[in-house]
Amino acid sequence: MQSEFSFSLHASDGPARTGVISTPRGEIRTPAFMPVGTAGTVKAMLPEHVRATGADIVLGNTYHLMLRPTAERVAALGGLHKFMNWPRPILTDSGGFQVMSLSKLRKLTEEGVSFQSHIDGARHMLTPERSIEIQCLLGSDIQMQLDECPAIPISHEDAKASMELSLRWAERSKRAFEEKSSPGQALFGIVQGANYDDLRSKSLEGLAAMDFPGYAIGGLAVGEGRAEMFRVLEVTTPSMPANRPRYLMGVGKPADIVGAVARGIDMFDCVAPTRSGRHGQAWTRKGPLNIKTARFADDPEPLDPASDCRASRDFSKAYLHHLFRSGEYLGPMLLTWHNLHYYQTLMVDLRAAIAAGRLTAFIENFKMATGETDV
Amino acid sequence: MQSEFSFSLHASDGPARTGVISTPRGEIRTPAFMPVGTAGTVKAMLPEHVRATGADIVLGNTYHLMLRPTAERVAALGGLHKFMNWPRPILTDSGGFQVMSLSKLRKLTEEGVSFQSHIDGARHMLTPERSIEIQCLLGSDIQMQLDECPAIPISHEDAKASMELSLRWAERSKRAFEEKSSPGQALFGIVQGANYDDLRSKSLEGLAAMDFPGYAIGGLAVGEGRAEMFRVLEVTTPSMPANRPRYLMGVGKPADIVGAVARGIDMFDCVAPTRSGRHGQAWTRKGPLNIKTARFADDPEPLDPASDCRASRDFSKAYLHHLFRSGEYLGPMLLTWHNLHYYQTLMVDLRAAIAAGRLTAFIENFKMATGETDV
Repeated sequence: MQSEFSFSLHASDGPARTGVISTPRGEIRTPAFMPVGTAGTVKAMLPEHVRATGADIVLGNTYHLMLRPTAERVAALGGLHKFMNWPRPILTDSGGFQVMSLSKLRKLTEEGVSFQSHIDGARHMLTPERSIEIQCLLGSDIQMQLDECPAIPISHEDAKASMELSLRWAERSKRAFEEKSSPGQALFGIVQGANYDDLRSKSLEGLAAMDFPGYAIGGLAVGEGRAEMFRVLEVTTPSMPANRPRYLMGVGKPADIVGAVARGIDMFDCVAPTRSGRHGQAWTRKGPLNIKTARFADDPEPLDPASDCRASRDFSKAYLHHLFRSGEYLGPMLLTWHNLHYYQTLMVDLRAAIAAGRLTAFIENFKMATGETDV
Repeated sequence: MQSEFSFSLHASDGPARTGVISTPRGEIRTPAFMPVGTAGTVKAMLPEHVRATGADIVLGNTYHLMLRPTAERVAALGGLHKFMNWPRPILTDSGGFQVMSLSKLRKLTEEGVSFQSHIDGARHMLTPERSIEIQCLLGSDIQMQLDECPAIPISHEDAKASMELSLRWAERSKRAFEEKSSPGQALFGIVQGANYDDLRSKSLEGLAAMDFPGYAIGGLAVGEGRAEMFRVLEVTTPSMPANRPRYLMGVGKPADIVGAVARGIDMFDCVAPTRSGRHGQAWTRKGPLNIKTARFADDPEPLDPASDCRASRDFSKAYLHHLFRSGEYLGPMLLTWHNLHYYQTLMVDLRAAIAAGRLTAFIENFKMATGETDV
């Protein structure tokens, strides 16, 4: 394995690209989907099974981990990889998004965000510098700058002020990262600007001048709808540095991912497969289904008899239905596993389609099979 | 594999024995511990991991399965083994014990027990014949007669009447089993009589005359305490047919099992390892510990670094502590797995000690290591 962080593109098909991010902890095949391991565990999954689904990298949430068990404790125990028994790459977010969505009594200033923990009410302060310090204590391979992520709709004036704050925080994050990080780690900047093309453009320009090894697009999938999200991608990705990975944060459902890959995105994370799996929703090649509905009570077929995933292949829908009806742990365990495998298989197929120059045909098939029209 | 049910003894050490029960679905090494898979799943465990701990057989609960998903549905789906993806032997209880402890408005008559489901309030009737019918629909390899299992203390008069009812039900169960069962399945009789030696003796005499392929001891671990339970075993097991497996129902903690093996018991089932695992209690060679206590928050050691069980070896106590504090699925998943592995390792060690004629030394070591004195 190499000791540097790097990205190499292997093929493209229109705006879509496929390649590999190399890190000291292993390679990440792109387009990549990162399962979310909020509190140091991809919920209801053994790490070995996360890997078996085909995941090259998982995401950890700085907000949750800084509150419990704390970044200092994780560092004392040897870092997040060792703590959660996941030796491969980990990306951590900055904590900013969850502070705004989960914490209490939050207050945003130029300095950062002060807030009260949703767990025990303790006061904390998250600044660009503190976020990087935490991410370095956790030891994540890809780290994110602190940013502000406003909901859409938002006025142009407010979106501009927010985007400019995020740019100043990008600069502070970068300085802190240069001081605290270890070789092979990478810090990504985050493009903001809501759904205003001029602001997205300014944001990207400011970040590109700082030369990050990767760029995220933040502030999407926050209420604007899929069509508007795709439109923003279409006007943004062509200006992004071609030789850097592009990460669309918090996205998405399979159709979101397919559409975003077609528009030049390389990395994704989303709680959809894990959260919906815990609630009885299974993603399949024919679209989603709710295993709790009565029609599955007598269905002897597994979710995917041809799958190489044991959760998809070795248990009938009737059994999964029974597990969910009975409130058994094994229901969420199996459906999460199945969903993550479905997602990773989708990524395998997308990478193969791009490499073969047949992404358009792949998307047509995907739309027909799933009934999704707006991809 | 053979097509008949049989039991062969390989060695004994005092009253303790080790051997093998052979069934068409595989062998059961005795003394055996059967993990409890109440509703068609050993809670929070993949079946492949249940097997990996060393379990040869699991237990299913007739009461739960008859109510949901129903025995008829399981039969239509190919039987319980296929339903839960466990191809090895399954023992089902008669449902009687759970009717008395879980259902509502239950009424016991000579005919059987009528009761209301704790799930949806529907009325049901469980008779010896219906219990066998259900167990045959489920397709279990070892089935249990319907019996009454009174709590201790109980008057001699009441215990006698109850024991005699159980004997009559044993006869009816046997007739029903002879009609409905398939080759290779076995029905066990259950010795009752509370803690009255004369009643236990009468019960055993009545059952032995019916010549069951195995005998259970019921009505213990119901409030009498460990010393009294061991005393009842000491007066009961010597009269039990030596060439038939002996099953102590619903027992127990590790010290209960070690003491009962020393008194001639071959089979056990108990929710202790699974239930306590879900609640943060880990069984170890040095006795139990509660992973949720603050002293484990910074403990970098796994539960058992020398174990060949991944749950015991690959995750620190600090991580397990964090998972339980955070309410994460993976906590119960890993601790259940660890506990079942601990139990099965105990059974391996007991079998080896008996085979080598060194059970006394094993028990002395067990008492020293765990601090248990009354074994």
